[in-house]
Amino acid sequence: MLKKIPGGVCAAKGFRAAGIHVGVKTHNTQKKDLALIVSDVMCTAAAVFTTNVVQAAPIHVTKAHLADGHAKAIVVNSGNANACAPQGEENAERMCAAAAAAIGCEAGDVVVASTGVIGQTIKVDVIEAGMPALSELLEASEAASDAAAHAIMTTDTVKKEIALETEVGGRTVRIGGIAKGSGMIHPNMGTMLCFITTDCAISPAMIREALLETAAVSFNRISVDGDTSTNDTCCVLANGLAGNAEITEKNDDYYAFLEALQTLGVDLAKKMAKDGEGAKHLITCTVRGAKSEKSAEVISKSVISSTLTKAAIFGCDANWGRVLCAMGYSGETFDPEKVDVSFASAAGEVAVCEQGRGLPFDEDLAKKVLSEDEVEINIQMAEGDGACTCWGCDITYDYIKINGDYRT
Amino acid sequence: MLKKIPGGVCAAKGFRAAGIHVGVKTHNTQKKDLALIVSDVMCTAAAVFTTNVVQAAPIHVTKAHLADGHAKAIVVNSGNANACAPQGEENAERMCAAAAAAIGCEAGDVVVASTGVIGQTIKVDVIEAGMPALSELLEASEAASDAAAHAIMTTDTVKKEIALETEVGGRTVRIGGIAKGSGMIHPNMGTMLCFITTDCAISPAMIREALLETAAVSFNRISVDGDTSTNDTCCVLANGLAGNAEITEKNDDYYAFLEALQTLGVDLAKKMAKDGEGAKHLITCTVRGAKSEKSAEVISKSVISSTLTKAAIFGCDANWGRVLCAMGYSGETFDPEKVDVSFASAAGEVAVCEQGRGLPFDEDLAKKVLSEDEVEINIQMAEGDGACTCWGCDITYDYIKINGDYRT
Repeated sequence: MLKKIPGGVCAAKGFRAAGIHVGVKTHNTQKKDLALIVSDVMCTAAAVFTTNVVQAAPIHVTKAHLADGHAKAIVVNSGNANACAPQGEENAERMCAAAAAAIGCEAGDVVVASTGVIGQTIKVDVIEAGMPALSELLEASEAASDAAAHAIMTTDTVKKEIALETEVGGRTVRIGGIAKGSGMIHPNMGTMLCFITTDCAISPAMIREALLETAAVSFNRISVDGDTSTNDTCCVLANGLAGNAEITEKNDDYYAFLEALQTLGVDLAKKMAKDGEGAKHLITCTVRGAKSEKSAEVISKSVISSTLTKAAIFGCDANWGRVLCAMGYSGETFDPEKVDVSFASAAGEVAVCEQGRGLPFDEDLAKKVLSEDEVEINIQMAEGDGACTCWGCDITYDYIKINGDYRT
Repeated sequence: MLKKIPGGVCAAKGFRAAGIHVGVKTHNTQKKDLALIVSDVMCTAAAVFTTNVVQAAPIHVTKAHLADGHAKAIVVNSGNANACAPQGEENAERMCAAAAAAIGCEAGDVVVASTGVIGQTIKVDVIEAGMPALSELLEASEAASDAAAHAIMTTDTVKKEIALETEVGGRTVRIGGIAKGSGMIHPNMGTMLCFITTDCAISPAMIREALLETAAVSFNRISVDGDTSTNDTCCVLANGLAGNAEITEKNDDYYAFLEALQTLGVDLAKKMAKDGEGAKHLITCTVRGAKSEKSAEVISKSVISSTLTKAAIFGCDANWGRVLCAMGYSGETFDPEKVDVSFASAAGEVAVCEQGRGLPFDEDLAKKVLSEDEVEINIQMAEGDGACTCWGCDITYDYIKINGDYRT
């Protein structure tokens, strides 16, 4: 019943979006840097944030604005993170006030997010000056979601967008999302921004619960470089216009909605991992037979976060010893003599390690398997029935290039 | 009183060493791959090992051989880690037996270590065949320590060696060490091997305690790539030939010896960090004003381990936001609004962040400061009086190159 549809954050009833260049990004005036997402009616809303002790000003402001569980709009800029910067909260509040004035709502009902360089004062004046033009562009269309998706990008090379349709309580419910995230990505919300809109009717408590259950199996299971950003924010707005009976408990309707939200979350998370800065490979690591799901997750994350494993995949080198090594320093205990490892992709599968020992394998086939864009590392243990999949990417010359000179 | 002297592991009385090529490294017959260090008399001995759950066979064998707190020789090969490989322990035992036969001692008094690729059967036959020739070369000379230091290298570009002289209980005591370690290096003993010899008379319990106190402030405070190897070993042999009264408790003699051992450990640790695979910069991060020394260590390690900070230093980019960010996800709690950061080197010092906010600074000076081989990140917090220094290196194109195709 769950199916992909076009429209991104404008797919659900009653949502409009827009994105333009106002001048936060000074290097390239072609690149959009301000996005707005607006619901026609008040929404229940929830958000999850970075676990970093250093949190950007917009996060403090958004937390305050979402304290009542409601919001009507989201304003986001790229090019400046408004983190560790002078007048951070004041400027984040000014962004909300400008958006509120342009669309006609309370500043307290606006969610704000920023992404970009840390430590520099954000040019709030150009944001304020551009807001009326931005709000003029608001529309419920594929093109509008596309513009918003582009306006939140930094080093991303492709926009991340998806929309899904499902049925909740006999009504058609739509859910759409846009995301950005390319570097500084690590489990527990590395620099990623994700904005989700849905017309599902759902209570503040339940939308919050569904978002937590989604982040746990999607955004928190990807890693690009192990750095957890100061700005990560994932926010969902639900305006109820689908007309379903409001979800207020964990009933069948909740799980139907959750399935859609988790599918959307995993899709956007994989897109972020695949577009990791400089990445050439999406790495999917599945661990089975672990003590528990949590243990499988810790081990899988350790593998996808291992710089040496990432470098091996970049070199299409079936260096499974690094996989075992990364499992070994994950912090989980297990019997290394009961571990099987194989690499797989569209080009085939090659078993490289059985019971903790190397297998003779076809090096040419292994090279071919690892030369595909999307590769899998499959690990079978013998500790229990815990399983988990995490996603990462390889580390490349381009990652170094991008990050050796990001600021200047 | 503590002074540097030549001679490496042959500086202390009664130690001889040698290193040759026997054929474990098949790609290059010029590169030495087998080292031997021998004491004329039985030594008290201690070792610390990787915390990785997956431990190489030589570690299991060395643990058994050191159970009695004594050893007389160390045999080490490079080119193959003998980890996750068939007949691992059997082959490690055969290396000890071959060394013992060549020098005339019990196999149980030989320490064994291996470094190199994981998962392939070690060519123990070429090691056995080469052992008589190796033992013929044993000598107490600078050249002999140099040969041993080269024979344990893998991707290292320079040998790591040091010797010190101090006074313990009125006697001249010498202590020397060689080490290897370039990639897969992370706090808690990443692929590093370190062998230390001393003529100090010290009990097994006290040599073990001194080694633990040394590892904690040296080898466990460096990081190259966050990967903790399966093979790390740091072993010290003390043969007592200096003639000092045996150290059996934490008295003045113990602390005089500990000072020398820690100075040696920090020197070799810094050499390993500086020679990190592909590295162009040694990064020294000092945190002051933390809640405790432990808290300062966790924060400092988080900074030197941050891939984004490492990439910024590679680019000579004073991107202090990444430093704050890495502090923030360290797991320690602190007030980010009370953090000062500066970068320093032989070219000068530049303050970039005060009380959690960016300072205007001279970008040209910052570039110049960060262009030096050795750079410092100095962090002042306001949580207490805990301080700690950790060492790391930048991440470069060469790191990716080296590790994208290490195995094949």
